[in-house]
Amino acid sequence: MLNVSNIIALLTDFGTRDHYVGVMKGVILSINPHATIVDISHDVAPQDVTSAYFLLKNSHRYFPSGTIFVAVVDPEVGTHRAVLCAETDDALYLAPDNGTLSFLAKPTRVVQVTNRKYMLEPVSNTFHGRDIFAPVAGHLSLGLEADKLGPAARSFLQLGCKEPEVSSEGVILGEVVSIDQFGNLVTNISADRLADFPAIDVKIAKTTIKSLSTAYGHHAKGELIALIGSGGNLEISLVRGSAAKKLKASTGDVVRVRHR
Amino acid sequence: MLNVSNIIALLTDFGTRDHYVGVMKGVILSINPHATIVDISHDVAPQDVTSAYFLLKNSHRYFPSGTIFVAVVDPEVGTHRAVLCAETDDALYLAPDNGTLSFLAKPTRVVQVTNRKYMLEPVSNTFHGRDIFAPVAGHLSLGLEADKLGPAARSFLQLGCKEPEVSSEGVILGEVVSIDQFGNLVTNISADRLADFPAIDVKIAKTTIKSLSTAYGHHAKGELIALIGSGGNLEISLVRGSAAKKLKASTGDVVRVRHR
Amino acid sequence: MLNVSNIIALLTDFGTRDHYVGVMKGVILSINPHATIVDISHDVAPQDVTSAYFLLKNSHRYFPSGTIFVAVVDPEVGTHRAVLCAETDDALYLAPDNGTLSFLAKPTRVVQVTNRKYMLEPVSNTFHGRDIFAPVAGHLSLGLEADKLGPAARSFLQLGCKEPEVSSEGVILGEVVSIDQFGNLVTNISADRLADFPAIDVKIAKTTIKSLSTAYGHHAKGELIALIGSGGNLEISLVRGSAAKKLKASTGDVVRVRHR
Repeated sequence: MLNVSNIIALLTDFGTRDHYVGVMKGVILSINPHATIVDISHDVAPQDVTSAYFLLKNSHRYFPSGTIFVAVVDPEVGTHRAVLCAETDDALYLAPDNGTLSFLAKPTRVVQVTNRKYMLEPVSNTFHGRDIFAPVAGHLSLGLEADKLGPAARSFLQLGCKEPEVSSEGVILGEVVSIDQFGNLVTNISADRLADFPAIDVKIAKTTIKSLSTAYGHHAKGELIALIGSGGNLEISLVRGSAAKKLKASTGDVVRVRHR
Repeated sequence: MLNVSNIIALLTDFGTRDHYVGVMKGVILSINPHATIVDISHDVAPQDVTSAYFLLKNSHRYFPSGTIFVAVVDPEVGTHRAVLCAETDDALYLAPDNGTLSFLAKPTRVVQVTNRKYMLEPVSNTFHGRDIFAPVAGHLSLGLEADKLGPAARSFLQLGCKEPEVSSEGVILGEVVSIDQFGNLVTNISADRLADFPAIDVKIAKTTIKSLSTAYGHHAKGELIALIGSGGNLEISLVRGSAAKKLKASTGDVVRVRHR
Repeated sequence: MLNVSNIIALLTDFGTRDHYVGVMKGVILSINPHATIVDISHDVAPQDVTSAYFLLKNSHRYFPSGTIFVAVVDPEVGTHRAVLCAETDDALYLAPDNGTLSFLAKPTRVVQVTNRKYMLEPVSNTFHGRDIFAPVAGHLSLGLEADKLGPAARSFLQLGCKEPEVSSEGVILGEVVSIDQFGNLVTNISADRLADFPAIDVKIAKTTIKSLSTAYGHHAKGELIALIGSGGNLEISLVRGSAAKKLKASTGDVVRVRHR
């Protein structure tokens, strides 16, 4: 049974130049003045649901049990896409039904948020962060049960996140799945997959990196390295620089790992 | 009678790269360790008082009753411009007397902040955010009455915000009054003005948009649309793009609405 | 004897686009849900230890007594550089041993943080902000004594910050030590040094500024001025513009002051 906290963690693509995020916080505090609001990020690339998925997937486990996560990267705001509230043993999640929550393996319950009693009227077609997500989060932080928000959702949208393949020669074929603001290339190849490899080559486009490093600080500025990043996956980095720029890399680029 | 809360909402053009905003928060918490500080924005374009005005105008009503708003976009810091504290039935506002607060129709009281007892000495000529606004906000959040801050202000500066005109043919002549960071063009034409129009044309420069949309998500990427934005005014948007860039638009550009 | 508060002030170069800062806050709140977390800045230029030093030096005195400062600008993360906890009469400081803390004249105690009991296991080689700094800060805010963190540090790294020189003709030779995001050039020449000068010339490269101003607002847009900045040092500013761009200035540039 989830014991909800008053900690609300926000993730949006609203940026910080306008008043949008501040308004969401004002709405939350109007309902629960004792809420503790934490920003995960508001600088997700506009409407980049995949980035929102990765940021939430890689951060949720570090928050206190009972945290209410609110993720609003929502290109379809104002259409018929549903707003979901998912509950796990550890946390509550509010997000549009667009794949943001597809990292949740087995939520204990998922409902569609439809009960207008917990929304800000009139609900606009352009700013559900203010009119739906913030007030619902405020009410949840006061102890409102998720099943009061609307009917159970039969299913929810899954992002098609590719797992790496292994070729007949034992080469792991993965890809770049996200790029952080320092230009580090995060792949979908987890550390477990490399556990049996005493020594590896990492290849991206025409560049080959001939070993797995353990820390940036062991290398000179401008060196291209491969290492296990803080999320537990293989990353390609340029020491004190941007691997993404140096390699002109994008998400989706193929990364090959083979043992030597 | 206003019941002040311990919620302090900050709006500045100080940016987030330097220590200026952090220092303001440190000063506030030194006076009231229980203050809840919320950022509206610190990325207002440097010294853009009109933007500060719009952000505050569009956000204040979403904060809890008793919120203390602190808006420091202050090109004339260190000169004789006054610092104001305005009180309404709902909130307290601290801002330079430069038009930031001109959306307040009928404040119950406005005083000039002159009492050095509530400032940080020595008061610098360059950083009143730290030396005046933050400590005064801290004291207000502890229950200090506004009239302890200084003498009543007889008047305060009003921004000359144009209302749209209606031509003899019934064409509404408005203008772009702000542009958000996504490049949405916010006009001064409120939804009420369009209530009697069953169908409209929206014209900006040489581009005509032939209907009023209800949501971004109903349109394809790259489509130019007109819709009522979350602030209740007509906006021109490029779906998943920047209308400002596409149209090379600036604040002050004329927007014409006519019924068809 | 320091009376620690539950206020934790964060300074990093992690940026705000990714989830790194949010994760640090999640870790802190998991240990102390009542911590009050304040951001000084997360937009320090990547791995710019000197900037972190200046931001912390110029901001720490404005925070409440008992604040726990956490500064993570850490190019050598994952190597043998130590993590330090320094205590003064007023505050606690956590930072890598890389010069960030060299503004502390006489800390009452400095320890090397080595006790894994207060870290997040497994400690990664790339994200000590999450695995060491955040959890240790959380524990300190609950009252943990610094000496429980590890052995005393015999010394800690000092940045070589130059003091200005005075030539035989009485000319002060200083330099630009930091540039804020508005392009103001902050020098290492403190106000005290100018106290005996009734009138001065300030020279940088081939430009001479012929007096000391008291406020931006007294000058026209585009005018280059010299004034005592909010940190108490001589600054060179372009009114409503960037002196750094105008003068193509960098940190280390020589600034000459002579009386007239």
